[in-house]
Amino acid sequence: GMKILVSNDDGYQAPGLRCLAESLKQLGDVTVVAPERDRSGASNSLTLERPLRAHRVAPDVIRVDGTPTDCVHLAVTGFLDEEPDMVVSGINAGANMGDDVLYSGTVAAAMEGRFLGLPAIAVSLTSHQPQHFETAARVAVELIKRLREAPLPADTILNVNVPDLPWDALQGIEATRLGRRHKSEPVIRDTDPRDRTIYWIGPAGAEQDAGPGTDFHATRSGRASVTPIQVDLTRYNAIEAIARWLPPIGTLR
Amino acid sequence: GMKILVSNDDGYQAPGLRCLAESLKQLGDVTVVAPERDRSGASNSLTLERPLRAHRVAPDVIRVDGTPTDCVHLAVTGFLDEEPDMVVSGINAGANMGDDVLYSGTVAAAMEGRFLGLPAIAVSLTSHQPQHFETAARVAVELIKRLREAPLPADTILNVNVPDLPWDALQGIEATRLGRRHKSEPVIRDTDPRDRTIYWIGPAGAEQDAGPGTDFHATRSGRASVTPIQVDLTRYNAIEAIARWLPPIGTLR
Amino acid sequence: GMKILVSNDDGYQAPGLRCLAESLKQLGDVTVVAPERDRSGASNSLTLERPLRAHRVAPDVIRVDGTPTDCVHLAVTGFLDEEPDMVVSGINAGANMGDDVLYSGTVAAAMEGRFLGLPAIAVSLTSHQPQHFETAARVAVELIKRLREAPLPADTILNVNVPDLPWDALQGIEATRLGRRHKSEPVIRDTDPRDRTIYWIGPAGAEQDAGPGTDFHATRSGRASVTPIQVDLTRYNAIEAIARWLPPIGTLR
Amino acid sequence: GMKILVSNDDGYQAPGLRCLAESLKQLGDVTVVAPERDRSGASNSLTLERPLRAHRVAPDVIRVDGTPTDCVHLAVTGFLDEEPDMVVSGINAGANMGDDVLYSGTVAAAMEGRFLGLPAIAVSLTSHQPQHFETAARVAVELIKRLREAPLPADTILNVNVPDLPWDALQGIEATRLGRRHKSEPVIRDTDPRDRTIYWIGPAGAEQDAGPGTDFHATRSGRASVTPIQVDLTRYNAIEAIARWLPPIGTLR
Repeated sequence: GMKILVSNDDGYQAPGLRCLAESLKQLGDVTVVAPERDRSGASNSLTLERPLRAHRVAPDVIRVDGTPTDCVHLAVTGFLDEEPDMVVSGINAGANMGDDVLYSGTVAAAMEGRFLGLPAIAVSLTSHQPQHFETAARVAVELIKRLREAPLPADTILNVNVPDLPWDALQGIEATRLGRRHKSEPVIRDTDPRDRTIYWIGPAGAEQDAGPGTDFHATRSGRASVTPIQVDLTRYNAIEAIARWLPPIGTLR
Repeated sequence: GMKILVSNDDGYQAPGLRCLAESLKQLGDVTVVAPERDRSGASNSLTLERPLRAHRVAPDVIRVDGTPTDCVHLAVTGFLDEEPDMVVSGINAGANMGDDVLYSGTVAAAMEGRFLGLPAIAVSLTSHQPQHFETAARVAVELIKRLREAPLPADTILNVNVPDLPWDALQGIEATRLGRRHKSEPVIRDTDPRDRTIYWIGPAGAEQDAGPGTDFHATRSGRASVTPIQVDLTRYNAIEAIARWLPPIGTLR
Repeated sequence: GMKILVSNDDGYQAPGLRCLAESLKQLGDVTVVAPERDRSGASNSLTLERPLRAHRVAPDVIRVDGTPTDCVHLAVTGFLDEEPDMVVSGINAGANMGDDVLYSGTVAAAMEGRFLGLPAIAVSLTSHQPQHFETAARVAVELIKRLREAPLPADTILNVNVPDLPWDALQGIEATRLGRRHKSEPVIRDTDPRDRTIYWIGPAGAEQDAGPGTDFHATRSGRASVTPIQVDLTRYNAIEAIARWLPPIGTLR
Repeated sequence: GMKILVSNDDGYQAPGLRCLAESLKQLGDVTVVAPERDRSGASNSLTLERPLRAHRVAPDVIRVDGTPTDCVHLAVTGFLDEEPDMVVSGINAGANMGDDVLYSGTVAAAMEGRFLGLPAIAVSLTSHQPQHFETAARVAVELIKRLREAPLPADTILNVNVPDLPWDALQGIEATRLGRRHKSEPVIRDTDPRDRTIYWIGPAGAEQDAGPGTDFHATRSGRASVTPIQVDLTRYNAIEAIARWLPPIGTLR
């Protein structure tokens, strides 16, 4: 059977992860390697300055005192007895769409599975008070079943956002691009009880590009969005323009 | 004059940052907002679960108890009296090429400047015992001078890696793509002095795609590499294939 | 009934805490407020630079992202609907005897209960692979039963260490003083995988004063030790000598 | 000459530490080993779960990514070429009197010097906007000069609080006991910008026992207070009462 690694950024006890792991068991062997606590916003951060500790808290559940990326990194570089075939990350309690993806630990965990045999999938439910994790879990299951029939290239990363609806109310699954947000809301200045100034990162900006074809639009329309994600950050279509633009070394002397 | 924000991931006291900030003063007003300590490997992580604290340690130097992304986020969302025109991040002590870019706090700091009026630049010196920061600083200065003559789109991110050579030994500046590495070396298992198992993240993998056109190749050949970086992580050329591949909702019932 | 607050430094999921909380239910209402993760060695540290977060994970179990002292501090200063009558901390997996007490989060949690109506108790099992938590839990229960018959002053802190033995093998309960250790073993110098020097705190020193009357001696003899702990750190019997010794202010000019 | 180790809990860049280290140079060789950032409230906490890193930032100044206790522990267990003769900790920006001492990193750093050849001293200035560090530094110098004439037992810890006054306004130096505070002010409940509940530790309680003989009283009267501190936390005068009070083992069966 398939060996599926499940991780997330909300921590190994998060109900979204439990629902996902449970559902995926119908498809193969599931191992959870996930952060011991909430690491939302961790992006692809790797812990290099200190060692990590891992504790098996159930036969197939391991918690790690690190980031989502640390968890998957460990799991695919020798920590597990057998290398998994694919990584599924989530189900995040809250959307990971548009620019948010840059900061997302859920998507980062999936990216870290890019060297495995099957595409990696990040799954989020677009609500902060999620009620229908099982809808998102079923979308994940359907995508993996489809992968078995019609494989995609192994280094594919699928970023899946699912509206918080009962399965029967879901309007479809749509291939999308990431939308775009305006700049974040201003930093929030406050004082602590000892009268010192503190700053909270402000909320994400309003949607700027949220028209048809975007993940914002799909989920607002009741459809799950599936966005293929780039691991190679090169902006290929700009290389030539940069090459022409660069100051020639001769002029620099 | 131009208002330049300088940040990094090695911390506000790092010699690479000091060299960069000093050099950029010939081009405009420089403000440093940088992490209070080394945050290498922080990627685009944002601190959402606690407030940040900022301390002015010199008239134009502010240290923040957060990540590189936190620093630039604060600085461009209202923390400074005036919004800067551009972000320059670095000079990192060590290369940020190929897959490393995913984990890099230096590149993330530049990405966070994407909403400003001018392109953002991340600068790294390809040596862990750097000797020629002034070469990298001069490359940054030359790129910004060129931007003033021939502007690029504001949302451009340039990831610059400079060989650790005296300026006169530099062989040119090349527009490149990111190379690729093999999977990382295995996790390193060890025991702490209390006999408990610990795991260190292993070293980055060997170069896999490092041929002509890559940043690996350019710097190895004595040239500075300039790679345009994608902020929108959508893999556009895969959307259509995914659309055809997706299971039709009808089949899911 | 009595309202008992239970905390520890090994984290809210530790088996020692669970055993203790379960046993104390025969004596009154038990509420657990404990760190979300292992905070051994936290001493009396208080988190002042950031806010704390608390999550109710069961009707009577709350985890906090802080130190043992934070947990009890919150619980006795308004966080709970009703102020508890006493704090019982533990059961720690490992002894807290002699100089170790200075660093102990278990003992610190008890100290933070010093303003409540009943004495606070810290309970530890003197083994790092503990097998008989129920023995230590029963000692705690017996001490609290005794408190109900014959009250002690409210600001008393009892530091209890119990040998890891079945109840029937326990040789008694002894009022003790703290023993003393020699200086710690030397710091352990090592290098990380990136070839940078790191230092591990070395093991605690050997016992120096471990004769009859000490906690070391009692537990080695199969008895539980009960050491009354000082919250006021003044060394009263030295004040007069210091007064005579101090340089008179006149001589300082 | 004397080898003096200086540490603190405000971080190695704190002006109070710099003033102290500078003043002590008239008495011997001074080495600073101090936390890289503010660790106020750290108490005697020791870092056991990860290794520490140390960086020499000046010939006689080393910063460590740990607590005050970690810094002194390292320095006296083999990290320095030569073991120091005594530890002087401070000058803290703010008082460390009464119950505050339990939480103080400044006092903890001094306690960790208890195995050295000379008494350890913790020095604090009783103002949060300190102006007269040089007064506190001079008090420290005078105490150490006095120690050379009339030695005290090596394991003595002196907790010194100095009013924030010019030297000429200082009214004397007084041997004191620690005062006592009422319970802390209530926890401060708030919500973060994402609408989640957070808790700040409230301010210290009002003075309860602050009459003649206490550190509170001495400093309020313009005198520096010198309180001898107990490292052995045993409350000796309660042992006998506890012994009589304990349930006899026979009754437990």
